[in-house]
Amino acid sequence: MSRFFSDKYRDLTPYTPGEQPRDNQYIKLNTNESPFPPSEKAMTAAEAKLGKLMLYSDTQCTDLVAALSETYGVGKDQVICVNGSDEILNFAFMAFCDKDHGAAFPDITYGFYPVFAALNQVPYTEIPLRDDLTIDVDDYIGLGKTVFIANPNAPTGIALPLSDIERILKGNPDNVVVVDEAYVDFGGESAVSLLPEYENLLVTMTFSKSRSLAGARLGFGLGSPELIRDLNTIRFSTNPYNVNFMSEAAGVGALSDPEYMKRNCEYTKEVRAYVTERLRALGFEVPDSSANFVFAKHPGLDGEQYYLELKKRGILIRHFSVPRIRDCNRITIGLREDMDALLAATEEILAEAGK
Amino acid sequence: MSRFFSDKYRDLTPYTPGEQPRDNQYIKLNTNESPFPPSEKAMTAAEAKLGKLMLYSDTQCTDLVAALSETYGVGKDQVICVNGSDEILNFAFMAFCDKDHGAAFPDITYGFYPVFAALNQVPYTEIPLRDDLTIDVDDYIGLGKTVFIANPNAPTGIALPLSDIERILKGNPDNVVVVDEAYVDFGGESAVSLLPEYENLLVTMTFSKSRSLAGARLGFGLGSPELIRDLNTIRFSTNPYNVNFMSEAAGVGALSDPEYMKRNCEYTKEVRAYVTERLRALGFEVPDSSANFVFAKHPGLDGEQYYLELKKRGILIRHFSVPRIRDCNRITIGLREDMDALLAATEEILAEAGK
Repeated sequence: MSRFFSDKYRDLTPYTPGEQPRDNQYIKLNTNESPFPPSEKAMTAAEAKLGKLMLYSDTQCTDLVAALSETYGVGKDQVICVNGSDEILNFAFMAFCDKDHGAAFPDITYGFYPVFAALNQVPYTEIPLRDDLTIDVDDYIGLGKTVFIANPNAPTGIALPLSDIERILKGNPDNVVVVDEAYVDFGGESAVSLLPEYENLLVTMTFSKSRSLAGARLGFGLGSPELIRDLNTIRFSTNPYNVNFMSEAAGVGALSDPEYMKRNCEYTKEVRAYVTERLRALGFEVPDSSANFVFAKHPGLDGEQYYLELKKRGILIRHFSVPRIRDCNRITIGLREDMDALLAATEEILAEAGK
Repeated sequence: MSRFFSDKYRDLTPYTPGEQPRDNQYIKLNTNESPFPPSEKAMTAAEAKLGKLMLYSDTQCTDLVAALSETYGVGKDQVICVNGSDEILNFAFMAFCDKDHGAAFPDITYGFYPVFAALNQVPYTEIPLRDDLTIDVDDYIGLGKTVFIANPNAPTGIALPLSDIERILKGNPDNVVVVDEAYVDFGGESAVSLLPEYENLLVTMTFSKSRSLAGARLGFGLGSPELIRDLNTIRFSTNPYNVNFMSEAAGVGALSDPEYMKRNCEYTKEVRAYVTERLRALGFEVPDSSANFVFAKHPGLDGEQYYLELKKRGILIRHFSVPRIRDCNRITIGLREDMDALLAATEEILAEAGK
């Protein structure tokens, strides 16, 4: 730290992203990336922008906003586009929380929420999940805080039904409820249908997972025109050209190819069912996942050891050094053959451990 | 504004970017874009990433950091890559200013500085330029504030010599001096050579202008390893994947083609000299510019009227509704033929105004 660094950030602990090895020696099941390339339509659209990159991108993201508005059946004034959904999550912490208006989220969820809270000097409450890693909705009623719910939750993969999301919205009428639907296309129920009724609802989504565009950095938010206006006030005071031309075009291209996305999600769901069954047969506890990953724990295997043994064998999964889930690992659902490699390695590791 | 919006941003006035008309009916001389497409090497490199966009981009920007380190002769730990240089300017306001550590910059400069200050609740001092729109370096000695200097300055185009930048660095040893070199390749003297001596120096640059990549959103900062570490603490607490894969690759490609950039800058400098001379001959006051634009004022012509008359004729320039410069306009240096169209239209407007 330099002697010039502001006191307010001296204790800030940044987020630690999953490992991104630059060689290709690993089967990479650690950051919930899609095993499929982007839609050809996304790639073609991005490519068409290359010769025009000397011009600034469109601060209004006119084309992408129009395509999202059509895809999700909301008004154009209900859409905001961002440089990956982390950006809108931070904007939401900035816009709807402050020192007098705290945040609340589960103790086991996306690890960036507490970092955003700390960055913005927002007091926050981490509400413990039940022992089975599910959310107890009663804990979220009348909180008087801005609520952040990942649905499906990460790293558990467990989804809340829409009726529970609605209870949380109703139970916090004077606070924004942010529903982070990064993984919704793999089996969750989207809260977008509740937008007409709840002015306190902000839904955030990403092109990184189901639409195979993690490297393009493209996310978006859907909410009431007033919430979107607030978020745009932040955006235009931070980085109005936050979305680059290639990624905006890729997003429009991806939205024009819904069949491709749907097919890939179906594939992932089938492989997920297969992996879940196989892991359970090997003695793992695996909650039903609605995301493109599973969260697995073996009663006879230390979580970190399992992660390290797989890494030795060329397979990367995600381990979190969080006490409550230290024996769990998050495993991305990749191609069937990669999952078979994971399962074979797992059998080997279990055998070596005498389990 | 929604009823949920934090009080701290209620009075925030966002930045207003230059107009970006989506049709191609204008000769666009209003946002200092390059008239040249990106280097073929930049486009080829970005294109090669399209099929890999399902993977997250590299949070370390390893390839681009290495290329920038080589290009500018600094250590890899002295480089940070960002999603357009607006992002690093905001990071600098976050990291090196707070309510007890204010900022200082000229009254006439990049209009985003006061917005960043307001966003981050940083008190700021706007130091008046002299009547001839130059910076009086004596005003910047012993300020006890974080200093932001655009060099060359925008919208004036006037550059400070390196010796003056050094005086400001020496005069504020306990504060960071941010030198915003967005336009340096068009004739300014870069402060990069001062980095080994001044731990309080942060130089920010962009690929948007001389390297024709405005639409790719790519900027970077160069400073001491400690300053860069602080900025990375902010970056990893905000948006660790801030730079997308295509833009990072485009940046590496652009850096591998320095001759192309140099040739384009030479062209712009020649056309700038021509335009400056022609405008002066028409009675305009035009300070010597070291950037890819000129700042022009005609004693017989209202600044806004000149802007509007040109717009009617299909030519966009940038007018600022700031009292002190209301009669000035910033005119980007484009292709020679576009500047001839501007000059012809200007002659017509002056004739109609009886000047």
